[in-house]
Formats: sequence, C-alpha cells, structure tokens
Amino acid sequence: MNPDAIRQSIHTALGKKPADLIITNGTLVNVFTAELLPGTDVAIKGNRFVAVGTIPSAARGNETRVIDADGAFLLPGFVETHTHIANVFRLHDFVRLVLPRGTTTVVTEVTELGNSLGLAGIQAFLAEARRQPMNIKVTAPCFSPPYPEMETVHPFSLADYETLFRDPDIVGVGEAYWPRIVNNPDQKTLELLSLAWQHHLPLQGHGAGARREKLNAFIAAGIASDHEPITAAEALERLRLGLFVMIREGSIRQDLEGVAAVKDMIRDFRRLSISTDGVTSSRLLNQGHLDVLGRKAVALGFDPVTTVQMLTLNAAAAFGFSDLGAIAPHFRADLQIVAHLEEFTPHTVIAGGRVAAERGKLTIAGEEYHYPPFACNSLNLDPLTAESFRYPANGSEVTVRAVRPDRQTMVTHEEIVTLPVENGNIRAVPEQSILKYVVINRYGRQHLSRGFLAGTGIRRGAIASTLNWEAYQPTVYGASEEEMSTAFNRLLEIRGGIVVVDGGKILAELPLPIGGICSNLPMEEINRREKDIEAALEHLGSTLDNPFFHYQTLSFTGLPFLRLTDKGLYDVRKGDSLPLIIE
Amino acid sequence: MNPDAIRQSIHTALGKKPADLIITNGTLVNVFTAELLPGTDVAIKGNRFVAVGTIPSAARGNETRVIDADGAFLLPGFVETHTHIANVFRLHDFVRLVLPRGTTTVVTEVTELGNSLGLAGIQAFLAEARRQPMNIKVTAPCFSPPYPEMETVHPFSLADYETLFRDPDIVGVGEAYWPRIVNNPDQKTLELLSLAWQHHLPLQGHGAGARREKLNAFIAAGIASDHEPITAAEALERLRLGLFVMIREGSIRQDLEGVAAVKDMIRDFRRLSISTDGVTSSRLLNQGHLDVLGRKAVALGFDPVTTVQMLTLNAAAAFGFSDLGAIAPHFRADLQIVAHLEEFTPHTVIAGGRVAAERGKLTIAGEEYHYPPFACNSLNLDPLTAESFRYPANGSEVTVRAVRPDRQTMVTHEEIVTLPVENGNIRAVPEQSILKYVVINRYGRQHLSRGFLAGTGIRRGAIASTLNWEAYQPTVYGASEEEMSTAFNRLLEIRGGIVVVDGGKILAELPLPIGGICSNLPMEEINRREKDIEAALEHLGSTLDNPFFHYQTLSFTGLPFLRLTDKGLYDVRKGDSLPLIIE
Repeated sequence: MNPDAIRQSIHTALGKKPADLIITNGTLVNVFTAELLPGTDVAIKGNRFVAVGTIPSAARGNETRVIDADGAFLLPGFVETHTHIANVFRLHDFVRLVLPRGTTTVVTEVTELGNSLGLAGIQAFLAEARRQPMNIKVTAPCFSPPYPEMETVHPFSLADYETLFRDPDIVGVGEAYWPRIVNNPDQKTLELLSLAWQHHLPLQGHGAGARREKLNAFIAAGIASDHEPITAAEALERLRLGLFVMIREGSIRQDLEGVAAVKDMIRDFRRLSISTDGVTSSRLLNQGHLDVLGRKAVALGFDPVTTVQMLTLNAAAAFGFSDLGAIAPHFRADLQIVAHLEEFTPHTVIAGGRVAAERGKLTIAGEEYHYPPFACNSLNLDPLTAESFRYPANGSEVTVRAVRPDRQTMVTHEEIVTLPVENGNIRAVPEQSILKYVVINRYGRQHLSRGFLAGTGIRRGAIASTLNWEAYQPTVYGASEEEMSTAFNRLLEIRGGIVVVDGGKILAELPLPIGGICSNLPMEEINRREKDIEAALEHLGSTLDNPFFHYQTLSFTGLPFLRLTDKGLYDVRKGDSLPLIIE
Repeated sequence: MNPDAIRQSIHTALGKKPADLIITNGTLVNVFTAELLPGTDVAIKGNRFVAVGTIPSAARGNETRVIDADGAFLLPGFVETHTHIANVFRLHDFVRLVLPRGTTTVVTEVTELGNSLGLAGIQAFLAEARRQPMNIKVTAPCFSPPYPEMETVHPFSLADYETLFRDPDIVGVGEAYWPRIVNNPDQKTLELLSLAWQHHLPLQGHGAGARREKLNAFIAAGIASDHEPITAAEALERLRLGLFVMIREGSIRQDLEGVAAVKDMIRDFRRLSISTDGVTSSRLLNQGHLDVLGRKAVALGFDPVTTVQMLTLNAAAAFGFSDLGAIAPHFRADLQIVAHLEEFTPHTVIAGGRVAAERGKLTIAGEEYHYPPFACNSLNLDPLTAESFRYPANGSEVTVRAVRPDRQTMVTHEEIVTLPVENGNIRAVPEQSILKYVVINRYGRQHLSRGFLAGTGIRRGAIASTLNWEAYQPTVYGASEEEMSTAFNRLLEIRGGIVVVDGGKILAELPLPIGGICSNLPMEEINRREKDIEAALEHLGSTLDNPFFHYQTLSFTGLPFLRLTDKGLYDVRKGDSLPLIIE
C-alpha cells in the first residue's frame, strides 16, 4: 500500500471519507476465531477492507454502493493453493468460470509454459495474470520434467530463477518431486532450494508415497507443503511434521474422501487446506471449482466453519500471505455472500473491492491480453512427408520394445514385439494395435525419436499432439506413415494442439497455439472439441480410460516404467536408456 | 540455508550421515496438530531439526550425542514476541537467565537505544544480538517518543529505516501508538508504514484503549498485532479483526488474569500468544521468564497444549517466521525437555542445535561484545555548578505549574503552586515536597528546561538520571541547587545512569554507561543497586509506588497529562506547550 492508500483506509474507517462499498447485515464467518457473527457490516475502500463490525454512518456517502446481505453469510474469497491453469484453456476464461463461484485467489504452477516457452513464456503468463480481475499468483517451476537428462526442455539457469524470484507475483517454487530431492540431489537443485530460501519463498512438494525417513529428508530440505497424501494416515504423518497439507480434489484425483478421517485425528487444522491440482473444462463447466470442494468436505463431516478456514485462511497461510483469506481491515477485499453456508453458492462475489460476479455471472472483465508472436509460433518445424516416418532396418523382421499403457492408470509397460520389415522400413501392425510412435525435438534440430505404441486398441489413423507432459514435444502415433504425415502437418498448420486423422481426413482437432499448450477458444468450445477428440479416438479403436487426458501422459517420465522421449526409450525408474531394437 | 547445509540435512535424515544430537523417547508436544505423541525421537544436524519420529539407526554415529528424554515432554523453545531488553541490563546477562528457562527466541524493541544513540546504537545492539547463543531479533522503532515535536530525539530518516529494513535481523516495526496512526497521521508516518509493507515487515501496534472505529482504522493502516488488551472483551474484539494478540504478563502489567476468559469465547487460538512487554532484574532473578507465563496460563484454565502453542507456534506466526516455534524437520532446533508439562521447568534446553542449558544453568556462552566508544560516552556535557540550577525571576514570589505524579499510576497532573523568589531565583520548597525538576538537552546545546515536581514526598536531596522514557534526556530533581549539581556531575562521571544524593553524599547509584540506558554490571548486582536506589529514594521521603520504575516515567509523553521535556512543559493530550510561570 502506498501512503495515500493507507491514509484513505484510515479516514474511511473513521468515517471521514466515504467508503466505496458497504455490505450490511451479514453473518460473518470469522476465520480467525471460528465464530459465526450475525449482524456484521463491512466497509471497503479501494481494494481493501477498512472496517468490520463498526461502520460510522458518515462512511456511507452518496457514491457508496450498499449491499444488504439480509442475514446471509459473508465468507472470505476462496484461495486455491495448488493447480495448473496455464494448460489447455486461457486464463481469462478460467476466471470467467471460477470467480462467480467464490474463488478470488489462485496460485498456479506454470511448468507447462516454462517447459515449452522458457522464462519468456512464464513472463508472458505473469503479464496475463496481472490483467485479471482476480488475484493470480504463480510458483516458479522447480524442475520439470522430472528427469531433464532424459528429455529436452528449456533449461532454467539460477539467474533465470533469480529473475523470477524478484517478481512480486512469484510466490513460491512449484512442486518438487521427492526423489529428485531425496536421492542424491544435484548441486543445481540444492542451489535452487537455497536461493528460494534466501528469497523467503515457500517450496511446494510432490511427496507421493514418501514416508518415514524419506519424508523427513524431503521436509528437512525445506519443502513446506504437499498435495499428494491419499489416505488419512499419510495426511496425518505430514501434518505432524509441519507440512501444509493441501488435500487434492480435482480432475486428476479425488482424495478428499480417502483423507477425510484425518479430521478426527487432530485438534488443530491450521495447516490443512483443500485444492484441485488442476481442473478440466468439463469439471469447470458442469461442476464448479472450490465450491465443489466445500460441499464435499461438509458432506464428509468436516465442520462448515473449519471447511471455510481450509479454503481461505489456512490456504493463505501456506504461502505466508498476511493479507489474504479473511474479512478484516487491511485484508484484500475478497468476499462472497452465500445464502446457505453449506451450499457454498455465492450470489455475490467481491474481488479486490469490486463486485465481480452476481448470481453466477461475471460482472467485471480484466484487460485483454495477447500473447506475443514467439509464444504463438513456437513450433518452428518443417512439414514431414510420409517418407520421414520410415524406420530404417535391414532383414525381414525385427524385435522391438513397444510402450504399452495400462488401460486405467498412467503407468506404461514394456512389451516385446516382433515386427515385419518391408523395403527397409519397419512396419506398424495396426491390426494388432501396434502403432508407430514418434517424438520430435522442437528445438531446432527436428530430430525424430522412434518407438512403437501397443495396446491402445487403435487399429487405424493417426494422432499428432503437442500436449504431452511435461516436455511438450510434438508427438505422433499412427497406423501408417501417410496418416502420420497428414496429422503432423496439420498440427503445424494449427501451431500446436491435438489432431486426430483417419485416412486423409481430419476427424477432430483442438488448436493450442500458445506454446502448443493453451487454446484461444472459449471453454465451451474447448469442451466440445475435447469430446470430439475422445469420440475420434474411440472411432480409431482406442480403449484407454479417459482418453483426452490419458494420451497427454504417455511420454511422461515422472511415472513408471517405459517412456519414449525426444532422446529415445527410457526405463525411467532405473534412468537407463534402452535401444528400440533388441538385437 | 546454503546448499551444503541442505545436503547435510537430507543425508542425516536418511541415515547417510551421523546426526549431531539425537533425543530419544520424548513425549512430543505437537503444536501443529495439538497432540501429545509419546515415544518420539528427534535428530538434529547443525542448527536444524532434520528428523522427527523416524531416525535411521545409521544416523547415530560415534560423535552423535544422545539424550534419553525418558518419557519427558519435548516442547519447542519459547518465542517472546514483545519485550524491551535493551534496557538497564546487558543482553548476554538476560540470555544467561532466560535461556535455561526455555526461551530460545526473543523479538525485542530497541526504541531506547534508538532514541539515545540513533541508528548506530541499534546497529551496535544488532551486532551484540548476533553474538548470543540464542535467537535475538529486533523491531525497528516506529516513532518514539510518541510526540517528537515535544522533545528532542535522534531523528530516523526514511533512508535510515531502509537501512534497518534490509538487515535480516530486523523482523518488523515496533509498537505504533494508535493516536499517532489514527489522528491525522503525518506524511512521514504514512511513508514509514508503506515502506515496512513493501519489505513485508509486520507492524506492531500499541492499541491501548482503542476500540470500534478507531481500532478498525488502526488495523486498516496495516497494524498486525497488539499487546495492550487488558480485558477478555478487548482481546476478543482484536482477535475477531485479525490482530495477533499478545497477552501481556510481565513487570509493567499482568493482564493474563484479566484476559483469560477469552479462552471460552473463541474456538481457534492461532492468533493468541503471551509476552512480557519487558521484565525487571527482580522478576528475572526471582520468578523467571516465559515459563512463568506458561504456569499462570495453565493455572487460569488454558489447556496445556494450547498454552505451549501460544508460547511457540502462535508467537512465531505473529512475525511470519516459517521455521520457528515447532519441533519438525527444517525448523530451527530449539527445544526444551520438561519432566512435568504444566510446570514448564526444562531440565535441558537446546538452542540452535546445541545443548544450551542443563538443570537451570547455561552450558554455552555467546561471544563477548564491547559497545564502541560513541555508545559508552554518549553524555557529552559539561559539569554544572549549583548556579546553573537557578531559576531567574523578578519579584518575591511566582505562581507556577508543577508536575504532580499519581502515587500509583503513571499519570501526572498539573498542580498550581506559588513559590518564593530569593535573590532573583525561584526556590524549591522541599518542606512541602516541591522540588526543582530540570531536563537537559544532551545533544550539544546543554539547554536546561526548567520545571517543578510536586507530591513525590521527597523533602531533601537530589536525583539525577538518564533513564527517562523515551527521549532519555538527563533529568535532575532536587531540593537544592547544590545537591542537584552534585547529582548531575556524578551522573556525568558514571557516563549516565541513576544517582541519588543526600547533602554532599552519594546515597546510591547505578551506572548505565551504554547510551545512558544499559549497565555492564551483572544482573544480581543491578538488582542490588535497584534496591539501594529504592531505599535511598524512600530515605529522601519518596512515597511513589514502585519507585525505581516510576521515576523513569515522569517525563514520558505517551501518557497524560502534564509533562516536562527538554523543550518545556506540555499538556500532552492537547499537544499544547505551556509556560512554567503563570503571569
């Protein structure tokens, strides 16, 4: 706050200046004392609360907007502590859907744009974030992909981190995979942790499955939070060790039910919050955002006021935000008016002091932002002919390692298959659902890394995509070289995204021109396209569960076992590079 | 933490390196979850906890010290959030007494040295603080004396504050008097608040008596805490508005009993802590430090685990300390082993990873620190003859405003008295306990500001002192000019402190050569001298309660009503300068 804003705040609280907005007769959910306080008035000046409880009558000026809460509950705006929103949809469109549901602060990962566009990509996202009518904060990517030695990404130097850490909208370091910290961390990792520590930035953890001495080591390195516990016992172990636990309940996993029993194990909830870890267009359009989490927590037996604390003050505390997550003087004026507490359905949402949504509709807009050319033309590759997808080999057949995904999980296995060689080219065998699988290094060299994909059920067509965790390299799967060429060349035309081809025909596509990751289409259209892509994949024969999501993860080195990256095949658990052809 | 320290922490938690210290079989007071956890082991490497609960056997090396807690309670070290320790005694001597009682972190005001020695005085204290075997942090003075226009002090420029705010041991801004914030704050004050906000430094409040719209205005300005509530209702009002409330229980006031009922009014205690606001040598020697507060809170009905939270994690939260106030990996290894929880009497105290005290005795020492010459020779004044204390006047009598202190409180009143003029000099009337009262500007000009003191009971002798809140100007009270001269000249010889004179004889004295505020004597000797001074004052006839303390406050402009400063007489409530002589 600048000196003039402080003076304005003081004078408005005293009634020497008119407030901008006054809410009368609310039932305040006091997150400090865990009380419900009926008959509470609240005054706002600029983007801050300036008075709660006692509003001098002189603070109600001619220009002051007055909202009668008529006894309804006044909740602080919700704070999201762990999510991935620089992904598929655009930020302003996300804001349009979540702000009317009471979310007023979001802290998001930006590993996706960081990996595909580097530091400048993150800086562009920060520029977009600052133009939104709600509070968007960002964590600097820690190290993703998990194993950069296995695949090509934009490297972040310590100087890049220093640049990010000086940005006031960078509020922490994003999720660190525990094995990267615990198992012989390299010097650069340690220097990054130390640098974050010097800047007082909390380090978020990804501690899936870590326990006992490994969990201690992870926390001893300075990790402050974890959103990965999936049982009450895991949550309890983490809370006892001082981690801020964000129970995950979103599109990737729903852990609230599995963790809920922790509520009967502890007497103090201050380090417990709930977050989504990311949501799909479908969930945002059809279910909601943090309001869904509130309803579910109460349904699972959490006390309603504790639930509000988990979604507000406790969440803010995980980042050390001292002026967020409560309705009190000096706090950022983020508030929702909710008729029935346990329904978490605000009829009015105030963000940064402005009425931002009424009856589920956004009433203010941010400033439009256009990503710069480098971000929208990030695939600087030449088209590829069918010939390019030939796999040269001698003889009449070869034995290879194919990648076989589980139908339900994100795990992949090695499958040994023998394939025909025709005219010096190893053939896919689509009738057995063995597809060619190519990962292309987008950073200048246009190197093709070759593999095979088995067990997806697909027996025809081709898929080209840039939406591949976490290196975001263009990837093509196909039954024939011709279809692979068609899909890939269309992918270039739409500047990244997802393309599904059958024969010479484009069955479905979703353009993601911003870094190959984000669309400019509205959420409803994205949702339609996602469904079209799922239908197209099923038309090709795909039997994988949740296919729009599942195909994004096939090259992800953060999970076992066999993965194809732009550098070749890897047993990611052992870190071993493996040849495609078994001699 | 530097990269190597992080690596050491990780490896020790995993058992790849030996721990420095292991405590086995403790009953952990878990301040995160509010649980008691028997059978807990804790490992320390360097100055950090690295493992709690699970200690690999390989972490116990040949050099590892092992302490068997034998089922005793493991409490985090206590955190003091508001006190004044740069005052009368030396820091290392304070540490000697409080560390064995479980206090491992102290945040202290330094207004005293700031006012008497300026920025360099605070920097000297910071240098001393860094040499202590416990964690000493400092708040930058906000604005003291409360009304600098009424008296001369070292002015702090915004550039000085910027210098302080960059020091890692400055963790906030010290207590701001609410009227200075709420009643037409000046531009410099607003700029100071804004600067602190930019540096993410919490502002401590002094909100005595503020309520309703004035309290809102105070908090809206950015004030984060208050140690002044004296009733449960005042504490509740502050907690609801998000202030961190530090219940005061020390030598100046004991408010815990008056506030205790708040515990039955709230369901969440996270913003409630307890602090001393300063302790005397007598209290430190005869009672204790924060351990006294713990015992009293439990005796008043606070839950013992809540009490531990108030003295540790809650206190740390008031300053946003993310690695203090709990026993958990990565936290500073401050711990006390206590046989009976509710007695708060540790038999072993660990501070910064080292065994700091056993059975009430300090077992480690800090590094000796000598204040630089400017700090030890801060009274650059010439001796004064009896002649100097003449009050020139014409005629045979004059009517004057005398300052009359209440016997019990720190309030002073105006008393109109008519005094004889002899040989052009207004006379004291010691037989009616009307003394001359002189405040001398120590900053070069040796200007004498003249007044009278009435109603103390003193009928003979003189007192000279530099220990005067909060401008620390040399002050002399006396029945005769000769005794005033004797007392003042002795004050110069001892380079500041307190001198009590009867006739030509020094009855008692306490040298405070560091800025006229701090002694180099050990606490026991200081305590003896304080008693000697009290006896000497009573010998002169003083009837004021708690005289050692009371005489320090006579010139304090922070309380009503009539005060004499180096600039003259003031009605401090109105801010009006008043002439001594009523024409």
